[in-house]
Amino acid sequence: MTTDALPGTLIGVGTGPGAPDLVTLRAARIIGDAQVIAYPVLVGGSSFARAIVADLIPDGATEIAIEIPMTPARAPAQAAYDDGADAIAAHLSAGRDVVVLCEGDPLFYGSFMYLMARLRDRFAVTLVPGVTSVSASASAAQLPLVARNERLEVLPGPLPEDALRDRIAGADSLAIMKVGRHLPKIRGVIDALGLLDRAVYLERATLPEQRLMPLADAPDKAPYFSMILIRKGDDPWL
Amino acid sequence: MTTDALPGTLIGVGTGPGAPDLVTLRAARIIGDAQVIAYPVLVGGSSFARAIVADLIPDGATEIAIEIPMTPARAPAQAAYDDGADAIAAHLSAGRDVVVLCEGDPLFYGSFMYLMARLRDRFAVTLVPGVTSVSASASAAQLPLVARNERLEVLPGPLPEDALRDRIAGADSLAIMKVGRHLPKIRGVIDALGLLDRAVYLERATLPEQRLMPLADAPDKAPYFSMILIRKGDDPWL
Repeated sequence: MTTDALPGTLIGVGTGPGAPDLVTLRAARIIGDAQVIAYPVLVGGSSFARAIVADLIPDGATEIAIEIPMTPARAPAQAAYDDGADAIAAHLSAGRDVVVLCEGDPLFYGSFMYLMARLRDRFAVTLVPGVTSVSASASAAQLPLVARNERLEVLPGPLPEDALRDRIAGADSLAIMKVGRHLPKIRGVIDALGLLDRAVYLERATLPEQRLMPLADAPDKAPYFSMILIRKGDDPWL
Repeated sequence: MTTDALPGTLIGVGTGPGAPDLVTLRAARIIGDAQVIAYPVLVGGSSFARAIVADLIPDGATEIAIEIPMTPARAPAQAAYDDGADAIAAHLSAGRDVVVLCEGDPLFYGSFMYLMARLRDRFAVTLVPGVTSVSASASAAQLPLVARNERLEVLPGPLPEDALRDRIAGADSLAIMKVGRHLPKIRGVIDALGLLDRAVYLERATLPEQRLMPLADAPDKAPYFSMILIRKGDDPWL
């Protein structure tokens, strides 16, 4: 192909929560046909999204690993996404579609959004939604998330304690993401609200190393891919 | 098989938001191997979940259509789920697994919960999470749902106006489900909060008849499978 070709399409593909067979048929087909595949990785780490679909990536596909520095400052990560977007844009301009892998769903706390923001004005974008870790965790725990006219609130664990308390107090059902080192703070809030016996803790839902237990029994040091689910309502009978 | 066989497993399978290729690989395999498949249908209607996976259902599978009467009273629907659970239990007791089809995700406003509540004490349950209509709608609209430490609130449209106003005012990002005939009420609340230009309306996301437009342009009479998405934050650059 030459640079006179029609530009390619940026395709953000959700790879689901972790188990390779929780990828959608559409995602599997698109990844299996891909010429160029991109994904962010933390410097020195590996890509979870890529690991989920490793068996689907065709031999000979070009891979773009966008290395994101792990620093509290935003500028280095912004520069890394700028560079990654440039590398992707070169392929798109040459007429090649680029598949960006995203664990879970690409628009639900996904880094794909940072690439989309940099490229959507110049190139066509397509998205393939994926199964989120929230749905995966609820299925693993066999915990109904929401029924009838119940509300679901999704919160990130790094929120300040006051914000967590207000939101948890006001919600019907909750999924608290990115628990990690914030577990003791979150558990304290849940306990103070009298909800500890309703809270379930999950790590790496759907993977072989999945852990599922009452939040009361969870370790203080949780990994990043951990979640707390709370359902205040009774088991929905109808 | 005889009734002396080990009991079967109740398998709740999310079929995703509507497009047949947004089914997961696991769901496709389980449905393709199923001996007995169950799904609720409104009396006189057809099953959306079954339509999504129609091409995957094996010839000769036994199908159990659980007919749910559409009345405001709860007792007739409860009786219908009781009867459906009995029909499923007969197969489980005879050693046959029963696959229950659920559009979207089985624990996210899914009727599977009503069957699970009736059967989980007597039989093993397995769940296969699915892509929700929330993720599907966000992908169709190319609207980032939540980034970084943003919160997502999922609300059912039938909530009273006051409750909607409070929740919409306090949220970062919103998915309002089951819009249907509640659209004028919901739109009024969103407009009064000055958020109308941030609100997107979707019908039947991922299906050929999908409609996507600013909420300001949406028809007063929306179908049941419609949704409003609101993102208050800016496009996430990082």
